[in-house]
Amino acid sequence: MSVQPHPQDLVLNRLINAPAATLFRCWTEPALLTQWFVPKPWTIASAEVDVRVGGGSQIVMCDPQGNQYPNAGVYLEVVPNRKLVFTDAYTAGWVPSAKPFMTAIIAFEPEGDQTRYTATVRHWSEETRKQHEAMGFHTGWGISTDQLEALAATL
Amino acid sequence: MSVQPHPQDLVLNRLINAPAATLFRCWTEPALLTQWFVPKPWTIASAEVDVRVGGGSQIVMCDPQGNQYPNAGVYLEVVPNRKLVFTDAYTAGWVPSAKPFMTAIIAFEPEGDQTRYTATVRHWSEETRKQHEAMGFHTGWGISTDQLEALAATL
Repeated sequence: MSVQPHPQDLVLNRLINAPAATLFRCWTEPALLTQWFVPKPWTIASAEVDVRVGGGSQIVMCDPQGNQYPNAGVYLEVVPNRKLVFTDAYTAGWVPSAKPFMTAIIAFEPEGDQTRYTATVRHWSEETRKQHEAMGFHTGWGISTDQLEALAATL
Repeated sequence: MSVQPHPQDLVLNRLINAPAATLFRCWTEPALLTQWFVPKPWTIASAEVDVRVGGGSQIVMCDPQGNQYPNAGVYLEVVPNRKLVFTDAYTAGWVPSAKPFMTAIIAFEPEGDQTRYTATVRHWSEETRKQHEAMGFHTGWGISTDQLEALAATL
């Protein structure tokens, strides 16, 4: 299940004090996903996810001023409680998006009672990798993951 | 199983006098794939296919002068005897390719003893769709499909 590193990856790797199945729920149940997915005070206005290969996701992010930012993607690989792969290169039904930007490989590996949580975010070019880093990937995903961890502790 | 049309599609649709399972074999068994996949006198020098979601394909095409053209891709969706979806946007393990060009949705739908065979080849932009058309999509895929049909008749 380990992911072969690629030069165009951005990676977040953390040992989280929650079972893999709980973290998987936080990623795949809209009522949970909306609670942690973007750094506060941003919010999720709505989340629709069809978690199966070829199924789409529609997540609308909302900034503190109320402006909405829809994000659509498709699930490429789903291994219950262990792995999720998705991309914005398609929407549901393999419809090509305007601009393929990233592919995310989320791995949940049990380590004792904890979970080795690895988010590998992969880009089609070094240019977009750098762009994503400059957009604040590490801070943004880091804060979101703090929120994920806090939510998981309540479940 | 029907595919929602998209403006950036190129489509080949044909009723073939062979069972869906036979056509699926021709697409997924290297010893068969090499016999029909490129219009003669082009040939396939080698074909390696790992037909499962996230599995890679490595197909080396060979022109009449012996020049080799490697093509790598990944399977996005596999429904035995009914559907294959693959793209050159990744190679095995969700490794991004240099340039995402196309996604192919191959549908095999039984119609009596025959098969409604639909190859939907989808592009990320109108520009690449036109480029693929200008490269001879309809002639090339048409001749290959004639070869597929002839091979299937012998199985």
